[in-house]
Amino acid sequence: MKTAPLYGAVQDDLNRVEAVFDEIKKVDFGPLGEMLRMVLGGGGKLMRPGLALLSGRFGNYDLDKLVSLAASVELLHTATLVHDDVIDRADTRRGRPTVNSTFENSTTVMLGDFLFAHAADHAVRTGSLRVVELFSRTLMIMAKGEIRQDLAAYDSRQTIRDYLARIGGKTASLFATACEGAGEVSGQPAAQIEALREYGYNFGMAFQVVDDILDFTGDEEEMGKPVGSDLMQGTLTLPSFLLMERSPNGNPVQAYFEAPSAEKLRTAVQTVRDSGAVEESSQMAHDFCKRAIDALSALPDTPDRETLAGLARYILDRQS
Amino acid sequence: MKTAPLYGAVQDDLNRVEAVFDEIKKVDFGPLGEMLRMVLGGGGKLMRPGLALLSGRFGNYDLDKLVSLAASVELLHTATLVHDDVIDRADTRRGRPTVNSTFENSTTVMLGDFLFAHAADHAVRTGSLRVVELFSRTLMIMAKGEIRQDLAAYDSRQTIRDYLARIGGKTASLFATACEGAGEVSGQPAAQIEALREYGYNFGMAFQVVDDILDFTGDEEEMGKPVGSDLMQGTLTLPSFLLMERSPNGNPVQAYFEAPSAEKLRTAVQTVRDSGAVEESSQMAHDFCKRAIDALSALPDTPDRETLAGLARYILDRQS
Repeated sequence: MKTAPLYGAVQDDLNRVEAVFDEIKKVDFGPLGEMLRMVLGGGGKLMRPGLALLSGRFGNYDLDKLVSLAASVELLHTATLVHDDVIDRADTRRGRPTVNSTFENSTTVMLGDFLFAHAADHAVRTGSLRVVELFSRTLMIMAKGEIRQDLAAYDSRQTIRDYLARIGGKTASLFATACEGAGEVSGQPAAQIEALREYGYNFGMAFQVVDDILDFTGDEEEMGKPVGSDLMQGTLTLPSFLLMERSPNGNPVQAYFEAPSAEKLRTAVQTVRDSGAVEESSQMAHDFCKRAIDALSALPDTPDRETLAGLARYILDRQS
Repeated sequence: MKTAPLYGAVQDDLNRVEAVFDEIKKVDFGPLGEMLRMVLGGGGKLMRPGLALLSGRFGNYDLDKLVSLAASVELLHTATLVHDDVIDRADTRRGRPTVNSTFENSTTVMLGDFLFAHAADHAVRTGSLRVVELFSRTLMIMAKGEIRQDLAAYDSRQTIRDYLARIGGKTASLFATACEGAGEVSGQPAAQIEALREYGYNFGMAFQVVDDILDFTGDEEEMGKPVGSDLMQGTLTLPSFLLMERSPNGNPVQAYFEAPSAEKLRTAVQTVRDSGAVEESSQMAHDFCKRAIDALSALPDTPDRETLAGLARYILDRQS
């Protein structure tokens, strides 16, 4: 939480969410505590909890329940990251060693399950079965999205439509649930809940597109991962799709997929950067942001609404 | 469900549970459907759903809700099996190829997550937040138990007490939840719910001890896995602990752990079989069964109660 003013009126309440994580880290079994400190160590942006708390301010702001919701969203997110790291055989995330580079893959899987259990437990604490239902549906969509991505690795027949469906499932759905769930917990009218969902979904889409752009243009040090790491894992993202659209008959991304090498990866990354595909991707992120902000018009015009709009603009400019 | 009369009055209702799995298998994404058919293919004993439905008959037998509960328990169980198979790098389970022997480890992890999501979804359909809470607590305990087991592999300093805590977490807790959850869903008085939990827990303990005995004495063909597979994975179970208690200063199990080889494994398995440790383990399984049956005395004396008692006696005699 280095970016203090970002979350407006709920900034301090985010400490309550971190306190939940501190409680979870206090387990009676040393090695598990060590693993939990690695993944819930703090220093994250708490973007999803921030959106959840802000969304709750348009209704009955019951802090205990909303903190449970916010913690649950972040725990679900963290659990999927832990399982992702098994998938990607990643050694670092944001510059820190991942759990599975220190512990066995098998132990890492169970750590993710342990976090799912805590996510469910905190969803229960909101007192709303509808929230638990949202969570289970979201996890279904996320898992299916990851399976799709996994099985499509190194397959260059995919389309931009496939890409959008995939990031909708793996990223935007959880942002949508953070906002919609808060609307439910705080007892808002159906139209507002729908607007919050719409905001969260488009926010998440923009967030992921920016993430995928940074994989080509970002600073390795700041990101804590090498440039081009998506391609390295066989994953096509928006900038690659746009390049392939421009040069359907042979381009360095396809060449890399057909016979991966470090040299071909460098060429592919450089070509994407020089092709205008990055600018076009930024434009799409921009469009998603605009849709997110437009959705807010169904909510009362309050400083909280301005904070949500500001967050949407903020993520367009992030560098890591 | 080859053992037709086993589940008494709920035998036919188990078809409703299988129908839930058939629905889940109908996904719009071919490869996921293939994976689901591998793990929800039918032919299982449906022990946990059977106990859940029977437990529900001591209260208001609301079939829709109880089927959701029963399906949820089995889905949670299946999800943990799928994740276990990643852990154990197992190629077969009950003689069939495991998902992760056909698909990538990474994809298998996500399949487990997808099943967790369905388990949560069906827990929600019981309409009881308390049931969802039971499920999340159970998953917490199970995951922690597996992490303990993982980190203790090949550690011969463990005790029988550690073993009992571990199987309590990884197996008995879910049986307990199946029975307790059914008590909740069917609106039974607190004392009955507690008795059902007690029955389920001790039933699960007996079930796991028998499982661990069969790993030494079973028929490889019927079990679909090699004799001694626990030791092969570095896992100490009751028969090994009892042997080690008899010969604390050097025995073939410790010798195998210190320098594993096929020859030493054969010797260790044979020594356990010949040592009386198997008989002593059977006696413990027997004691857990007795406790399970004793707990039933708090329930009305009905044919369903006799079915539950019969199931407890049945698992003592199973051969695979």
